[in-house]
Amino acid sequence: MADSPNCDLKSLSPLQLFERVTEQGEKVRALKAGKAPKDEIDAAVRMLLSLKLSYKTTTGQDYQAGLPPKDLVLINNGTTKEEDEDFVDPWTVQTSNAKGVDYDKLIVRFGSSKIDTDLINRIERAIGQKPHRFLRRGIFFSHRDMDQILNAYENKKSFYLYTGRGPSSQAMHVGHLIPFIFTKWLQEVFDVPLVIQLTDDEKYLWKDLTTEKAYEYAKENAKDIIACGFDINKTFIFSDLDYLGTSTGFYRNIVKVQKHVTFNQVKGIFGFTDSDCIGKISFPAIQAAPSFSSSFPQIFNGKENIQCLIPCAIDQDPYFRMTRDVAPRIGQPKPALLHSVFFPALQGAQTKMSASDPNSSIFLTDTPKQIKTKINKHAFSGGRDTIEEHRKYGGNCDVDVSFMYLTFFLEDDDKLEQLKQAYTSGELLTGELKKVLIETLQPLIAAHQERRKQVTDEMVKQFMTPRKLAFEF
Amino acid sequence: MADSPNCDLKSLSPLQLFERVTEQGEKVRALKAGKAPKDEIDAAVRMLLSLKLSYKTTTGQDYQAGLPPKDLVLINNGTTKEEDEDFVDPWTVQTSNAKGVDYDKLIVRFGSSKIDTDLINRIERAIGQKPHRFLRRGIFFSHRDMDQILNAYENKKSFYLYTGRGPSSQAMHVGHLIPFIFTKWLQEVFDVPLVIQLTDDEKYLWKDLTTEKAYEYAKENAKDIIACGFDINKTFIFSDLDYLGTSTGFYRNIVKVQKHVTFNQVKGIFGFTDSDCIGKISFPAIQAAPSFSSSFPQIFNGKENIQCLIPCAIDQDPYFRMTRDVAPRIGQPKPALLHSVFFPALQGAQTKMSASDPNSSIFLTDTPKQIKTKINKHAFSGGRDTIEEHRKYGGNCDVDVSFMYLTFFLEDDDKLEQLKQAYTSGELLTGELKKVLIETLQPLIAAHQERRKQVTDEMVKQFMTPRKLAFEF
Repeated sequence: MADSPNCDLKSLSPLQLFERVTEQGEKVRALKAGKAPKDEIDAAVRMLLSLKLSYKTTTGQDYQAGLPPKDLVLINNGTTKEEDEDFVDPWTVQTSNAKGVDYDKLIVRFGSSKIDTDLINRIERAIGQKPHRFLRRGIFFSHRDMDQILNAYENKKSFYLYTGRGPSSQAMHVGHLIPFIFTKWLQEVFDVPLVIQLTDDEKYLWKDLTTEKAYEYAKENAKDIIACGFDINKTFIFSDLDYLGTSTGFYRNIVKVQKHVTFNQVKGIFGFTDSDCIGKISFPAIQAAPSFSSSFPQIFNGKENIQCLIPCAIDQDPYFRMTRDVAPRIGQPKPALLHSVFFPALQGAQTKMSASDPNSSIFLTDTPKQIKTKINKHAFSGGRDTIEEHRKYGGNCDVDVSFMYLTFFLEDDDKLEQLKQAYTSGELLTGELKKVLIETLQPLIAAHQERRKQVTDEMVKQFMTPRKLAFEF
Repeated sequence: MADSPNCDLKSLSPLQLFERVTEQGEKVRALKAGKAPKDEIDAAVRMLLSLKLSYKTTTGQDYQAGLPPKDLVLINNGTTKEEDEDFVDPWTVQTSNAKGVDYDKLIVRFGSSKIDTDLINRIERAIGQKPHRFLRRGIFFSHRDMDQILNAYENKKSFYLYTGRGPSSQAMHVGHLIPFIFTKWLQEVFDVPLVIQLTDDEKYLWKDLTTEKAYEYAKENAKDIIACGFDINKTFIFSDLDYLGTSTGFYRNIVKVQKHVTFNQVKGIFGFTDSDCIGKISFPAIQAAPSFSSSFPQIFNGKENIQCLIPCAIDQDPYFRMTRDVAPRIGQPKPALLHSVFFPALQGAQTKMSASDPNSSIFLTDTPKQIKTKINKHAFSGGRDTIEEHRKYGGNCDVDVSFMYLTFFLEDDDKLEQLKQAYTSGELLTGELKKVLIETLQPLIAAHQERRKQVTDEMVKQFMTPRKLAFEF
């Protein structure tokens, strides 16, 4: 990187500029922390101010730490109209495009990196196995610092996995399984500890729920999560309402994050307003804190520097952008991330599957008959209006929800490709495609239900007890 | 109370109006919670709106829950200039008056009640003992709902005491002892459990401290508190950083308070801004939560409805105004309060004694010689410039800091009255008055130091261990 901020800044994109400012800010902090000579600090500060000015000139916005540039002409394909944009935050996913959210744009907007073929190949080499279908098919499509995780892994340094769920109701749908299916695979191939946060406090704050109810949902949801097949010796599941009152390490990290994030920042990142309760305003710190190994002294033997990898849907990224901004300031490593696409609603990929709309969702408790009826009745079809037209022009897999679901759940790559070609050519009818999906989902959900039945209250209690796992630190 | 809001509202003071709106708001909430008939709720809502309108017309301000009217003509004696007002919040106490803050005005502004002779007499009857000198001399001068506590006590219903300290440094000064001396007396005469909060998390958030340092200060301060003579079987001392991670009851109450207080409210009450960190913004809930007995399931056997009495300096009242506003909405009893005046700085009663200014304070670690030097050198005198003038015109006890300190620490009422008369008449010189104070404080502080030496780390650990106390609930 050139030392003068002026030589090539004009050629940088707003996002590149944003990253230059962020890097320079960290450099200044490091110099100050290391008590560097005054003239060296002064020079770095001058450069920082100059970079911030360039940023403002280019984007028309003031630089805000942790807040990449928004509403860029670049992103909007020459238009600046907000309506043309996909809307993605931790509570809402909305797009006008039947193909779903434009994930390439989201990568630019969020400032993350694409999971490209090189990275997938590197993962394959590291683990010596075929990568999961979610990687092969771009369902986990974006990351932050996954190369650091692989560096560490290749150098026999350990890391840990962190994912979570907001237990807003007893009913989980198939979309909720995506991060857990993938996390289970990651845990198996890398053989690392896993912590799973159930944010019952968040649900209490956002919904019309008592703390008791939220905690009950957390325990019910834990059963579905356990039924995914996690190893009890390598996995710790915790409810915030419970664990916050059981671990001094956790609250200490929460309060450290809370000291380093202002209301201005959470307003910018999450859209909070002055009328929001102070619980919502401070909650992001509670989702941030499990990114630091010292939140789990019982697992990591008090060690502070174990790197964390977070598999999650991309709508959770704002929490972890904030976390990554804070991490160096509280002397902690930044968590790495793997981002998934959203699981589309039955009615189409304009929004994600939501448990609060029963017709948009296939629940983990649905019977084979319910699954069949929902798919036949509600799954948005990319097929033509008449059989004749369909045979002649073929169907559109890009908007067909049944086909999308098959990309999530059908393991066989060849069969998926055959289905795609047959549907696109018009050889395969919508009803036939739906039948394949029904026959894929029915046994999968039945097997889940069977495993869930085996999960006892005693097992839930064990998974949720703070304890040492089968790893030495 | 009349049912029509219009008949007599014009005759009400802003504060009375404020209370009418608050009461009506609570009525509406109760009706809604009790699923009262719709027309009954509608009528109550109409009346609430009408009361709010009257409030706005009278005060020129929008009604804000928990925020009594400010800047009233009434309070400012006909002027509305802010500069003439005493400034009191949890972080700053400032007045231009050498006699100290005008506490009668503060009672009106905060909407609390004066501790009058009737109440003091009632306390005396209830406990069958002479009231503490802090009550006799108006050092605890204001209260909220102390009559409810006495009702409960007279009906053999128990309550508990809650007080606290922000451990910003190892050094405590004599002013810090005031709430603890009084709380110890309350505990003895009423024989009730006591919880003492050490807000090390607050100090971490506000000061340039690590969590480790703040926690260390908490434990050091606990020694001085224990040295006041609290009964280990009836007292639980806790650090937030510690106890939050040891009690699920505490965090549940914190998150309940956090759900029911908005940023707008804490902005109004505490003056927070958008640039404040989210830790400060959500902290008031952490000081609020110990007001509810369910924060201490180990002491109260999980019981939720034990009333709390909080002895504290009046600058802490904003926290508990907020707490009292939230309490009914989370189904908890409002805590009662006893408010003390501030302990004046050596330089005069314009501000309170502060540990960060060594010359303004007499520390609990000062030697007899240091005590003597500080009082002789720094204690603001109400005496005259020359001995001749003093003999002729007499001294002014209202501004004399040595005399003020004697009202805090000299137990003998007759002797105090004699000193006052002698000083006012000019018979007693400033040096002589200071000598009485020095001879009062030296043995008192020496005795404290002696008791503190007896406090072992093991005792601190015992006091700070969550456990059952010597009471059945």
